[in-house]
Amino acid sequence: MNELERTIEWRDGAVYMIDQRVLPLRYEIKSYTDYQGVAEAIHTMVIRGAPAIGAAAGFGMALAGLQSAAKTRSDLLRDLEIAAEVLRQARPTAVNLFWAIDRMLRTATDEALASADDVRAALVREAQRLADEDVEINKRMAEHGAALIKDGDTILTHCNTGALAVVDYGTALGVIRRAHEQGKRIKVFADETRPRLQGARLTAWELMRWGIDVTLIADNAAGHYMRKGLIDICLVGSDRTAANGDVANKIGTYKVAVLAKENGIPFYPVLPTSTIDLSLPNGDLIPIEERDEREVTEIDGVRIAPLGVKVGNPAFDVTPNRYIAAIITEKGVARAPFGESLKALASSV
Amino acid sequence: MNELERTIEWRDGAVYMIDQRVLPLRYEIKSYTDYQGVAEAIHTMVIRGAPAIGAAAGFGMALAGLQSAAKTRSDLLRDLEIAAEVLRQARPTAVNLFWAIDRMLRTATDEALASADDVRAALVREAQRLADEDVEINKRMAEHGAALIKDGDTILTHCNTGALAVVDYGTALGVIRRAHEQGKRIKVFADETRPRLQGARLTAWELMRWGIDVTLIADNAAGHYMRKGLIDICLVGSDRTAANGDVANKIGTYKVAVLAKENGIPFYPVLPTSTIDLSLPNGDLIPIEERDEREVTEIDGVRIAPLGVKVGNPAFDVTPNRYIAAIITEKGVARAPFGESLKALASSV
Repeated sequence: MNELERTIEWRDGAVYMIDQRVLPLRYEIKSYTDYQGVAEAIHTMVIRGAPAIGAAAGFGMALAGLQSAAKTRSDLLRDLEIAAEVLRQARPTAVNLFWAIDRMLRTATDEALASADDVRAALVREAQRLADEDVEINKRMAEHGAALIKDGDTILTHCNTGALAVVDYGTALGVIRRAHEQGKRIKVFADETRPRLQGARLTAWELMRWGIDVTLIADNAAGHYMRKGLIDICLVGSDRTAANGDVANKIGTYKVAVLAKENGIPFYPVLPTSTIDLSLPNGDLIPIEERDEREVTEIDGVRIAPLGVKVGNPAFDVTPNRYIAAIITEKGVARAPFGESLKALASSV
Repeated sequence: MNELERTIEWRDGAVYMIDQRVLPLRYEIKSYTDYQGVAEAIHTMVIRGAPAIGAAAGFGMALAGLQSAAKTRSDLLRDLEIAAEVLRQARPTAVNLFWAIDRMLRTATDEALASADDVRAALVREAQRLADEDVEINKRMAEHGAALIKDGDTILTHCNTGALAVVDYGTALGVIRRAHEQGKRIKVFADETRPRLQGARLTAWELMRWGIDVTLIADNAAGHYMRKGLIDICLVGSDRTAANGDVANKIGTYKVAVLAKENGIPFYPVLPTSTIDLSLPNGDLIPIEERDEREVTEIDGVRIAPLGVKVGNPAFDVTPNRYIAAIITEKGVARAPFGESLKALASSV
């Protein structure tokens, strides 16, 4: 196949993903037939973005069902619990990983399923449903968010929240895409997003493909453009949002939020309600993944720092709710006080 | 020679510089015997850092004197004016370039010099004096600044302000170095400083050589560490400071200042008074250099962004004076209102 229609697809018992580590210079497709491979793909960031990670975990659980030689439901459930634990270890911050795994386990324990093979079939259907729903959710988020974008706006975004971060369409970038489809003349400044450069590699590539005016900048330059009055609105994604509206997202998001507030620019996280973790009262309880130091000291194998240097490489940071103008979800736009508005949204249908 | 004693040295009619583009993996020395080469070295950032650029311009003017075949003082002065103009074009933001060139032209027009050869000799002496003074100035700044650092402090710094940014010792990094020499147990977080990575390539390398505890981080992570309460003080340099205390410095400095203020962390620029431009009432009048887009789209020749993407690459930003706790100079520490304190310092001996 030349290109996938979605970031992640299920075909005949295998999971296919666009390898996001080698874009934009190479378009390569990876395929997996076991959940261990999917866990590794999540860990090494072949696939990334909270909703896409959720979909990958769903398909990983479906693979685990097919892999298991169990003849009974209870034996199969035991194998699925093992697979769930392996997949949970893949990345700690994005809550969609845990959300999707729990959803798949709930499916597997449905009393209406009679045999192990019934469970296997249900898991494949549920993973596909989860992926299909993600696309619908993105489009609803995009519609809600696009209403906040005016003709002529210039938008700053951080990391990648496009079709590549989800099953298809995009979260924050989906909002931008929808505004563009509505005929609004918009411009985007994309933070390159060190250390993994998802902005340079993925966001710039997607926006160019969609025909949207994009300017790539070093993360350091975002404040300069804000202070110069060139940015009207900031849109980002989220890997996990606490009950009070504190948002964990790609490292550097907090910087964008603080600079936006300082310059009177509204800052909007765009996130599916599956990303909201009502069990955590605030963002300081969200575990922050520390990644390999070579993400900072090397770029594509090219060493850019002294050998032996100590490195700090947190993959995410937490933006306290006071910096957030509103949170855009598929169920509507939540405003302060977020403790109330998010709870109401999460429980609405 | 194996290593230079200083970042830039004059030996027997030639200027020698450490090539800062290839550190830390290679230590190479470049030599120049014409001012055009020096202008190119400044432009391509073989040498960078406002004080080092000033010293390079001084030696460049000395070379211009030796290069000129002029037999009379007036012919020599005409050649020097041409060289001055070429050197002025090398980089627009750092004021030390213009300051050093003006100082060399004043030397050349000293009525006491009888012949063209007298002028040539005076230029070489003045360039050397300028370089020697820079080292002394750094040590005085370091002494003033180190008094503000407490035992156990963790310092965040941006870009490179070490010995490599000056003739020897360092500005903001000189302060850190002095505190370390005083036996204070300090730690440093170094922003890698995209796009040119002076923090990763130069600051981390210098601090490791000096035996100072350094942790290299992506620029995006600075806010995370500040919010976590791990940073006590921020120290940066300056390429040009306006009369009101607005500071132009490496792109991303404004972000550090805003995040520091938001988290109650004092933010100190460290700069020689030669960097203060009293002719500019505020920082918005400082010209901001826009550099080659390949600094953003490539790293050491490795492409990291889509072909054809539009890029914004401002090399500097301006930090308004309201974010600044105090400005550390060789003549003392200036506090708000900076309009008065900087004027008093600049005119003091």
